[in-house]
Amino acid sequence: MICIKKVEDLVPLVRDRQKPATVACAAPQDAESLEALRMAADEGIAKPLAVGNKPAIITAAETLGISLEGFEFLDVPERDEVAERATQLVHDGRASVLMKGTLPTRQLLHAVLDRDIGLRSGRILSHVALFDAPPLGKPVAITDAGVNINPNLSRKIEIVKNATEIMERLGISRPKVAILAAVEDVRLRDMPVTLHAKLIQRIAEAGQLGNAVVQGPLALDGAVSPEVVRVKGLTGPVVGRADILVVPTIESGNIFYKALTYFGGLECAGVLWGATAPVVITSRTDTARVKFLGITLAAAVAGA
Amino acid sequence: MICIKKVEDLVPLVRDRQKPATVACAAPQDAESLEALRMAADEGIAKPLAVGNKPAIITAAETLGISLEGFEFLDVPERDEVAERATQLVHDGRASVLMKGTLPTRQLLHAVLDRDIGLRSGRILSHVALFDAPPLGKPVAITDAGVNINPNLSRKIEIVKNATEIMERLGISRPKVAILAAVEDVRLRDMPVTLHAKLIQRIAEAGQLGNAVVQGPLALDGAVSPEVVRVKGLTGPVVGRADILVVPTIESGNIFYKALTYFGGLECAGVLWGATAPVVITSRTDTARVKFLGITLAAAVAGA
Repeated sequence: MICIKKVEDLVPLVRDRQKPATVACAAPQDAESLEALRMAADEGIAKPLAVGNKPAIITAAETLGISLEGFEFLDVPERDEVAERATQLVHDGRASVLMKGTLPTRQLLHAVLDRDIGLRSGRILSHVALFDAPPLGKPVAITDAGVNINPNLSRKIEIVKNATEIMERLGISRPKVAILAAVEDVRLRDMPVTLHAKLIQRIAEAGQLGNAVVQGPLALDGAVSPEVVRVKGLTGPVVGRADILVVPTIESGNIFYKALTYFGGLECAGVLWGATAPVVITSRTDTARVKFLGITLAAAVAGA
Repeated sequence: MICIKKVEDLVPLVRDRQKPATVACAAPQDAESLEALRMAADEGIAKPLAVGNKPAIITAAETLGISLEGFEFLDVPERDEVAERATQLVHDGRASVLMKGTLPTRQLLHAVLDRDIGLRSGRILSHVALFDAPPLGKPVAITDAGVNINPNLSRKIEIVKNATEIMERLGISRPKVAILAAVEDVRLRDMPVTLHAKLIQRIAEAGQLGNAVVQGPLALDGAVSPEVVRVKGLTGPVVGRADILVVPTIESGNIFYKALTYFGGLECAGVLWGATAPVVITSRTDTARVKFLGITLAAAVAGA
């Protein structure tokens, strides 16, 4: 059992408990990716392996004044091949984390899903974002705010499994999972996501979801605020202390994620999970710090 | 044109520009409602008119140590009649704001929608929450996070009209409206809300939405962050400076609202709009401060 209060606490945790993870980054030619890899190398968290047009990467770093000391390179002059070559390094065990640089996300995902050189595991891919959560006093995982658009019940179950595995790898042996909705009761007629939420709870109660302790439907406040739990008189194993928040749709997840980032100013580490290795898929609007924290989370949950 | 930077700036604004609004509150027997009415009376914003079991209200206030100085009363011993009697006071012009105390919301809404004594206007009711928005440096209206569950296109248009009217009454003559989604492009196949968003923009461009300047679909960050607008290269009249954020579903609205409240610690004033008078429908988990700010917003937008 480990105990972290904030996302940034992952940094000393990873640095102290393991060797640097080799991170294969596809086309790190932007300031944020290069800075993030630099920070991760300096912190002893990652060993950057830059995949792409080596002269272009070096020129970009020089222009930006970012040292590439300690970086390894795989020179891939053909831009169309960068995603595949970076992915294959992870496939072959020469890196344990895959990271997107300046490529389009779909190019990297296409390589990840390739049957030969990809990272297919037979499971679905989902995005897990670990956020600082002031009302909880510990980070909370939000999923899936990035990949699955309108997941059906079976996909939602896979999303729960993926996030549960991440939290287990962070040392939380029985993660508490809130399936979010706008209300706490099942409303068949007008809120179908509440039925999904209750069914996932039942499936978990039947022992089909491993160590996950699931409760749903729950509104966000009931999932994270002990005070709201008291006023509303809510009961259950997850109320007021969720480790994982499962959003009903991509829109609610996207708005949630961006509300915490832009209105709340809260830190976040995100990773794509469900392949044979973690993938850091940050967006072009993410800061170097967010990308660095994504690398840190990926290193924390990557296999040996 | 008025200019407020934070929701709390509504308080001096309302106090200075108008006489106290008479607020008919149905069954104010809880600490938060009574405190909120007390604050509103002390600030010169509202003249409380407590409707319900008068001895019970007085006992509650005494127990809580809250002075009822300046309160008027309509003694309604029968609990079943409180909602109707409070609503009728507004219907008859004896109060300009209706407020929920300890009654169930649906009881009060039932009275509001009554054909005889209610506050029907021929329009739909929608919830508008004015929130502090750090990335914008001004409050932003979020709608509808409270009433309309899965609004179709025509309801979304009514929701936009309602929020536009609120912002106009606050002095923003051409409010900028972002119709939120997870992306900025129309994706017919998998994200139907993006089509709604684009259609609402087109309807506004055709002059059918009054003074509202509408753009959609927009992701939340593109609607509120000038920095994201720059990085993503977004253009349009609303990007980076929205006055109104229209959420696609009740789930996304509910999660957004609660993320700002519980994770962001941001202040909010909410009101139900679309009836002949504003209705303050706060939840039992709201603090007295939130209820007070709701009264303040209602007073600001109520008719003379």
